[in-house]
Amino acid sequence: MTASPSDRIVVTYHVTGEASSIDARAKGIAVEQSVEMPVEAITDERVMREIVGEVRGVRDLGEGLFEVTVGLAVETTGLEAGQLVNMIYGNTSINPDTALMDAAFPQEVLDAFGGPRHGIEGLRARVGVTDRPLTCSALKPQGLPVTGLADLAARFARGGLDYIKDDHGIANQGYSPYAERVPAIAAAVRQASAETGHPTRYIPSLTGNLDELRDRIRIARNEGLDAVMIQPMIAGFPTMHTLVRENPDMAFFSHPTMTGAQRVGAPFLHGTLFRLLGADAVIYTNHGGRFPLPKETCLELGRRATRAWGGLKPAMPVPAGGMTLDRVPEMIDCYGKDVMLLIGGGLLLARERLADETRVFQDHVARLAGEISARNVAE
Amino acid sequence: MTASPSDRIVVTYHVTGEASSIDARAKGIAVEQSVEMPVEAITDERVMREIVGEVRGVRDLGEGLFEVTVGLAVETTGLEAGQLVNMIYGNTSINPDTALMDAAFPQEVLDAFGGPRHGIEGLRARVGVTDRPLTCSALKPQGLPVTGLADLAARFARGGLDYIKDDHGIANQGYSPYAERVPAIAAAVRQASAETGHPTRYIPSLTGNLDELRDRIRIARNEGLDAVMIQPMIAGFPTMHTLVRENPDMAFFSHPTMTGAQRVGAPFLHGTLFRLLGADAVIYTNHGGRFPLPKETCLELGRRATRAWGGLKPAMPVPAGGMTLDRVPEMIDCYGKDVMLLIGGGLLLARERLADETRVFQDHVARLAGEISARNVAE
Repeated sequence: MTASPSDRIVVTYHVTGEASSIDARAKGIAVEQSVEMPVEAITDERVMREIVGEVRGVRDLGEGLFEVTVGLAVETTGLEAGQLVNMIYGNTSINPDTALMDAAFPQEVLDAFGGPRHGIEGLRARVGVTDRPLTCSALKPQGLPVTGLADLAARFARGGLDYIKDDHGIANQGYSPYAERVPAIAAAVRQASAETGHPTRYIPSLTGNLDELRDRIRIARNEGLDAVMIQPMIAGFPTMHTLVRENPDMAFFSHPTMTGAQRVGAPFLHGTLFRLLGADAVIYTNHGGRFPLPKETCLELGRRATRAWGGLKPAMPVPAGGMTLDRVPEMIDCYGKDVMLLIGGGLLLARERLADETRVFQDHVARLAGEISARNVAE
Repeated sequence: MTASPSDRIVVTYHVTGEASSIDARAKGIAVEQSVEMPVEAITDERVMREIVGEVRGVRDLGEGLFEVTVGLAVETTGLEAGQLVNMIYGNTSINPDTALMDAAFPQEVLDAFGGPRHGIEGLRARVGVTDRPLTCSALKPQGLPVTGLADLAARFARGGLDYIKDDHGIANQGYSPYAERVPAIAAAVRQASAETGHPTRYIPSLTGNLDELRDRIRIARNEGLDAVMIQPMIAGFPTMHTLVRENPDMAFFSHPTMTGAQRVGAPFLHGTLFRLLGADAVIYTNHGGRFPLPKETCLELGRRATRAWGGLKPAMPVPAGGMTLDRVPEMIDCYGKDVMLLIGGGLLLARERLADETRVFQDHVARLAGEISARNVAE
């Protein structure tokens, strides 16, 4: 039985090359990403018909760049997260002429991986905020003792933040071991939150192998936490998806560390792949900060994370990486209200005035969101 | 207590930029890869002294390229594989101006990770070959049923190969589930091996999450297998290193899928990092095959994998990716006898004459190695 063409994963690559050889190169990619051997050596009819990748299209984008689309059999992925990535880019990543830009997945793939379990709505419900962008900051620098981090968290929470995350560099180092750090910070946030009346959430960063990650989620859950952060490119795709499957009560933030080491389009990687694997919120480096992603790439990433897509919940865009208070109006203009505004170092510069500066941030967002709502009603 | 400068990990980046701003950019990398926040906002003296990354050197390589070296505190890695990678490249990977080229690790790091448990010597001992390059081929294409793959393996083994690996695309798909495939192939190789008298080894490819990987290693061990292949960039660094630690009897082959070619230097990634984490053999795409790694990069990779390095065992270089029989003399010239020659599709093209063609390959390698030894004695 031949799978219908629409049952295939259709992957889009950008390939630099020459018009005279692009068809052969496209065929080469389709073979590399499926059977990875000379097709003349294949004796099995079913493999030729149902497994070998098919070139679906080649489009000249000008200036030596081509868009190549390839259809890959879902069967080859075994519907497992690591093997999915292996099939859509894998060996072809080694060739600098080719970048992975997109993949369209059949509904079978969406259903198998399931996407965000909580998504934007679940993240809003946790903090009781429906009508404005969410706010977030980060505990830094690593190297502080547990008490120092807990003190920072308390001040952020007294300033009324929605979410407070660990810096992704904070792992399980000797100066702030996870098992001591997370209960202490969670307690500090609980106490400050009781004072403000706002249910500020703390998001610990998870590192280590699967055993350690499970143990760390258990510690977080015991502290009443219901959101965690993971680094998909370091933990590994299979590990990330396993944790999402096993912990339906937890909301997952994806962190962008090591996402640049491969040539994968940022909108696809964060907005599509991490969302497919269950990220409820995707943290990425916004334009105009410490990292040079173009504005249009960031907007497309946001659209990908939130678009209607095969019944998957939308993931919350979290633009970050050197954002400051003065960027808030423009970020809300860009992303609308379904965004989580993450300002880390920009708040920490306030030092002893941290809680006050956090309150300024929080009030700023609420006021701007109010203006937007009023404007929308007026229009 | 201040750590001595020599106790730091010294990371080398290639940075494209301008002479006028390179010092500031170097400082920016050192901060991003450590505290990741404005240093003016750091109030803790110990963090400033012992945790903040230090620029060690900036060297103009010409044509807008600079070599930047940065010293990072070992403490920040927590001596955990994922966090190690997070610290040496992590967020900086997102900036396309910067490529990770190298890192020099203090002995403390080498001792903590341990490198290959078997290395070249252990891979030689498994097949009783001390004096010539080892040989290897790959079972392909995925999509074949278990019987088809076992038949291929038997014919490779009758041709006298040293090692036979799964194609990295062969995971746990419905058409050849791991738990059926591995025992069947192992049995086929055992039987053929009993006929030839040569202890040919089968290397199954491991995929899935840590639970599944452990289960698959157990299945392999039950079949008497003592070597496996893992995909570090897909399984994740913590997962790879956990398996290496837990299975001291197993030799590990690393597969290059998703390693990219652009932003992490291939000699460092395969020859240093994968070796540090315990790869006994590193498979990479050789120059002049299906992938465009330059020859000098491949040679440097081989040197890195095998050089004397803080007491770690050498890892076996496995150049691959479209190699053919006619490349064998040149590959031996390049790499010497401590190499495993992996020819996949080039042998499979022989189709029904597969065992004979494999024998030609095997004899060819033995004869050439004999000539080299004779020449060395004569010199």
